[in-house]
Amino acid sequence: MKAGELAAALGLQLRGADVEISAAVPLEAAQPGTLSFVSAPRYLAMLERVAPSCLIVPAELAEQVPCPALISSNPPADFARALTILHPPYRPSPGIDPTARIAPGARIGPDASIGAFVVIGAGVTIGARAVIHPLVTIYPDVRIGDDFLCHSHVSIREKVVIGDRVVLHNNCVIGSEGFGFVEVQGGLAKIPQVGNVVIEADVEIGANTTIDRATVGSTWIRRGVKLDNIIHIGHNCEIGAYSRFAALTGIAGSTKIGEWCEIGGQTGVADHVTIGDRVRIAAQSGIPGNIGSNVTVSGAPAIEIRRWRRQMAAYVRLPELVNRIRALERKVGLSKTAPED
Amino acid sequence: MKAGELAAALGLQLRGADVEISAAVPLEAAQPGTLSFVSAPRYLAMLERVAPSCLIVPAELAEQVPCPALISSNPPADFARALTILHPPYRPSPGIDPTARIAPGARIGPDASIGAFVVIGAGVTIGARAVIHPLVTIYPDVRIGDDFLCHSHVSIREKVVIGDRVVLHNNCVIGSEGFGFVEVQGGLAKIPQVGNVVIEADVEIGANTTIDRATVGSTWIRRGVKLDNIIHIGHNCEIGAYSRFAALTGIAGSTKIGEWCEIGGQTGVADHVTIGDRVRIAAQSGIPGNIGSNVTVSGAPAIEIRRWRRQMAAYVRLPELVNRIRALERKVGLSKTAPED
Amino acid sequence: MKAGELAAALGLQLRGADVEISAAVPLEAAQPGTLSFVSAPRYLAMLERVAPSCLIVPAELAEQVPCPALISSNPPADFARALTILHPPYRPSPGIDPTARIAPGARIGPDASIGAFVVIGAGVTIGARAVIHPLVTIYPDVRIGDDFLCHSHVSIREKVVIGDRVVLHNNCVIGSEGFGFVEVQGGLAKIPQVGNVVIEADVEIGANTTIDRATVGSTWIRRGVKLDNIIHIGHNCEIGAYSRFAALTGIAGSTKIGEWCEIGGQTGVADHVTIGDRVRIAAQSGIPGNIGSNVTVSGAPAIEIRRWRRQMAAYVRLPELVNRIRALERKVGLSKTAPED
Repeated sequence: MKAGELAAALGLQLRGADVEISAAVPLEAAQPGTLSFVSAPRYLAMLERVAPSCLIVPAELAEQVPCPALISSNPPADFARALTILHPPYRPSPGIDPTARIAPGARIGPDASIGAFVVIGAGVTIGARAVIHPLVTIYPDVRIGDDFLCHSHVSIREKVVIGDRVVLHNNCVIGSEGFGFVEVQGGLAKIPQVGNVVIEADVEIGANTTIDRATVGSTWIRRGVKLDNIIHIGHNCEIGAYSRFAALTGIAGSTKIGEWCEIGGQTGVADHVTIGDRVRIAAQSGIPGNIGSNVTVSGAPAIEIRRWRRQMAAYVRLPELVNRIRALERKVGLSKTAPED
Repeated sequence: MKAGELAAALGLQLRGADVEISAAVPLEAAQPGTLSFVSAPRYLAMLERVAPSCLIVPAELAEQVPCPALISSNPPADFARALTILHPPYRPSPGIDPTARIAPGARIGPDASIGAFVVIGAGVTIGARAVIHPLVTIYPDVRIGDDFLCHSHVSIREKVVIGDRVVLHNNCVIGSEGFGFVEVQGGLAKIPQVGNVVIEADVEIGANTTIDRATVGSTWIRRGVKLDNIIHIGHNCEIGAYSRFAALTGIAGSTKIGEWCEIGGQTGVADHVTIGDRVRIAAQSGIPGNIGSNVTVSGAPAIEIRRWRRQMAAYVRLPELVNRIRALERKVGLSKTAPED
Repeated sequence: MKAGELAAALGLQLRGADVEISAAVPLEAAQPGTLSFVSAPRYLAMLERVAPSCLIVPAELAEQVPCPALISSNPPADFARALTILHPPYRPSPGIDPTARIAPGARIGPDASIGAFVVIGAGVTIGARAVIHPLVTIYPDVRIGDDFLCHSHVSIREKVVIGDRVVLHNNCVIGSEGFGFVEVQGGLAKIPQVGNVVIEADVEIGANTTIDRATVGSTWIRRGVKLDNIIHIGHNCEIGAYSRFAALTGIAGSTKIGEWCEIGGQTGVADHVTIGDRVRIAAQSGIPGNIGSNVTVSGAPAIEIRRWRRQMAAYVRLPELVNRIRALERKVGLSKTAPED
């Protein structure tokens, strides 16, 4: 592909020669024939070691790169678009596979691609242009919007509601039953989980992630939320718009998380907690209680991150602190109090 | 539904008017037309803000609620039963889907519902009234009791034994192979995992949870155990009756956990550990060694919870403790020992 | 089976009577009719309580066991081989199930066993003697070597490359899309994940584990790697040969781990980290930065394990340390500084 064609496809201006581009790659792997991007001056030094044929750059850096440039106000976003043009993702061909089991009365919008052995229950409605890979189960009475993309082995439980442009990755489970039991004479009785899950538009859910249906009412995943792989969202949670969670994170039941939050991997949030907007939580944190908006926290229990850094600095010196206490005790004649050393 | 009808169905006494009830909801969402429950006096204050049409209450609170009441000795358990009556869960219709692949010689009990594309291997026996959702794989020689409920995309490996009234949620794996390798000249040889998994009656296993088969013998899940989503149980473990584990917990191989334990989410238990009965473990704990019965622990490594609270109280003050040590050193003329501050 | 037959099958020498063996069991469960193994003198004491009919032992212990012995230079490895002979694992019969959906042009090697409802996309090539259990999805353009063993409900995404003798356990996902988004005016744009995953020979991947495809290039799992259940490997990672990871571990994107590493369960490794060869990481560790070769670490953030043990020893005494500081303050007249106690 010519740089000029790509510029036109992206709506960007090309500065320099109309070179040939065959692949888009990260800057550290750039070589002749490839496109990459530079978003800030600190990455310019890397251009002494690599030689892309073309770069997506902000206008103020265009003069400083040694190759043709596409001028962009958001280089990472335009690079993402270029990736899709240069490396179009696999999409199955349209049409409904003859082995798919679609219940009478289920309604599938136009231009759908439904793979082999997909099972769609009674009362399901799906919007236009759905792509459903093989071996997906959609239980009855599910409602799904337009441009749905669903990978193989996904389970969508009864009565789940899904908005437009939602992407579900392989083996995720939407609407599994929440975990609630009460003790009854000598045993445990299950609290029925009769609610559902509502997933708004532009949400993406990772592989092997599970989102439990509400006990009563709805577990709610707001617009634009992005969940990585192997995440657990408990019953009756609400996850605010555009929040992103990394892998292996768990959110216990009835917790409410605000908009534009970022949660690191393997973090746990307790039940019935409220977290504000634009909260950043470091990986492996534990959140036992409420957090306001616009803070960054770390640790278990998580605290404001600068305080956490001071705490960790003291923590890693604990053996020295013990020695210093012992020296103090000797100095003042209290050393008899330390036989356990 | 009339409150009187519901009272009769539950075997409870109705005190007050025979009001109409259309839904069961948590107390905080109660409004006219709904049923909720109050289990203790401390929840009565909430009735100033919400207005259920009917409440399930213990006898001693019946006079203190401003609406008709169903008298119960266990309000949460009776509310759970009311939920099922007012919101009956989805159950597929009986019958064996013509696409199900059932091996010759497999025996399925009466009144089963077997979904599309279910695969049942040779030598499998399943009791009465099984409900198996679509796209489930049951390997050969599995034995399953009555009233089995199995959601889509579950894998049950060869020779697994499952008791009555067991519930398996979507995508869980029962009898995957344990993780055991030995070093042999320049490589790793697998230790074959030739045992199985035994799941007793009334067990419920969450979505995307995996239970490994024993190397030799059986991994054993005792009666009434409840496992949440995305839990890992290693080979040769034994989980005692009525124990409950929250999501993302992992139990390493050959560990034995007693009855009526409760384990919080993201907890890890080492291999070859023995834990007693009625042990409560806080979320995100790490259990490196044995624990007796009737204790509550927290932390990694986990310790008795009151001691853990004292430890955390000191931990969060560590930066101040460093300052106090430094002040002491200055006071007694030892400050030269602290150049690393 | 006679001990002599087993000796011949294993290529080992039998010392003692040609006894009958019906099962292979761990030493603690040994009884007449069973085979077990002893790898070191410290296990000999157990032979006072158990009575195997035959033992696999190193030559130097052969005279010290009270039963016939098979002489081995690696008893655990030869015991593993004996397990497979005495307890042959289930293998489905060869042949391609008529319900399998194999795209025209996909090439399957000789002697394959392909289960019911398996879906194999266009352009897929699979080597000789593959065993693919039911309900597996292989997306287009996947290349797989000889002796592939794939359990039910696995998803292998487009363009993944898999070597010889690879084993994939139930419900794992190979080649799911990495987690990358950039903020664009008021929303989040996905960074397309156009790379793939390469899995070399002799790799084994656990149930419900996910391995993300590279953004560009390949996520690389080197020869002989063994991953337990419910593990997450991020995009563009490289895992070195013969490294083993326990369950619920997560590796963030672009991290490189060396050869022969062992990582305990529930460990997290940050993105863009490099870890050397033969590194051992204790369970529940957190790895924020690079680690050299040949070290054992623990903790979060992980440190060298002897230092970590000293730190933990001080940590568990923190409440006592507070008391000692307070005693020092009283002694030297600084107690006014401690009102917060």
